[in-house]
Amino acid sequence: MTVVIVVGLCHMMTVIVNGQRMEKDSRTKMIESAAKLIGSQGITAASFSNVLADSGAPRGSIYHHFPEGKDQLAGEAVRWTSARVLAFQRAYDGTTPEGVMDRFVGMWRRVVEASHGQAGCVVAGVAIDTVSSVPGLIDLVRATFRDWVGLLSEQFEATGLPKARAAAVAMATVAGMEGALILCRAEGSVAPLDAVAGELRRLLD
Amino acid sequence: MTVVIVVGLCHMMTVIVNGQRMEKDSRTKMIESAAKLIGSQGITAASFSNVLADSGAPRGSIYHHFPEGKDQLAGEAVRWTSARVLAFQRAYDGTTPEGVMDRFVGMWRRVVEASHGQAGCVVAGVAIDTVSSVPGLIDLVRATFRDWVGLLSEQFEATGLPKARAAAVAMATVAGMEGALILCRAEGSVAPLDAVAGELRRLLD
Repeated sequence: MTVVIVVGLCHMMTVIVNGQRMEKDSRTKMIESAAKLIGSQGITAASFSNVLADSGAPRGSIYHHFPEGKDQLAGEAVRWTSARVLAFQRAYDGTTPEGVMDRFVGMWRRVVEASHGQAGCVVAGVAIDTVSSVPGLIDLVRATFRDWVGLLSEQFEATGLPKARAAAVAMATVAGMEGALILCRAEGSVAPLDAVAGELRRLLD
Repeated sequence: MTVVIVVGLCHMMTVIVNGQRMEKDSRTKMIESAAKLIGSQGITAASFSNVLADSGAPRGSIYHHFPEGKDQLAGEAVRWTSARVLAFQRAYDGTTPEGVMDRFVGMWRRVVEASHGQAGCVVAGVAIDTVSSVPGLIDLVRATFRDWVGLLSEQFEATGLPKARAAAVAMATVAGMEGALILCRAEGSVAPLDAVAGELRRLLD
């Protein structure tokens, strides 16, 4: 049996397989760096030179791994982030709507806390900065948010919420967290997220 | 008596004073263009050349009006947007918490609808893309969000909500709208905002 433990998101990420910390290849390191830079400073900051400086990857490798350029790297950063968000949320094994919500909210709370309020959501960073010449990127952002809302909706429904309520609460939860992350960046603290989380919880009463 | 009517936000904005449509000066045109570009495509898109192309202002004027460069222009776009958001929201003359919320939500709904889901919030655009070398800009973003949350909180309290509830609902409303705007951009539709608005309304029950 393979046991994979994924700890945190973005720059806090460590992947442990069967108790062994995995050495990351340079492609993965660059994607992680791009995710970290987009999440904390927007897509402009995720220039190839910043990604190389942050990841320590050799210059030649970036063109090898991302021949389509910076947008391809941004897309991979979105996929990489989403895979981890979904894996973490899917691992919820409780039976209450409060538990479903707390897991999602708690994940983002740790991202904010670990970065002292500096980290935001990579997907939002790409959504806000999407260059119209890259239609594939906004399609990916849309699919990603749908995946998140869809998973939460399924999980809420599985705990007994009616389908329509589950879908609406799921959308409000994702939107509430995305908005809270922006307010947390502005405040440099987790306080806005906690206030929003308290209100989201009321939707389950 | 001077009657000022402000219609819409950003690129939909028209200012009518005493029944006369005011001619905008080139500084104002550039600020409006920057707000439009940041809101719809992020701060990267609000380059001086894009702002000049969009506003039709003469090239020399941009360095005259914004000697500190692009960050100064971004800051003015945030101030310009916030002044309009606050003026519109302050003009609420009803007496119910639902009315307070509907006015704020409805304002953003029109921004999304008028732009076919493309416009976002200028303040969020600046928050996500803030370059760490411009501390004044994140201070301005923080002050702006505090102004919005503070005004909504006062208005909710004035309709009878207890102080703590008013503050929490105000924060959830601003965060919910900011997150909804990101989801609306991804979907190219106002549907996420409507779903979030429905849930925010439940907080007043």
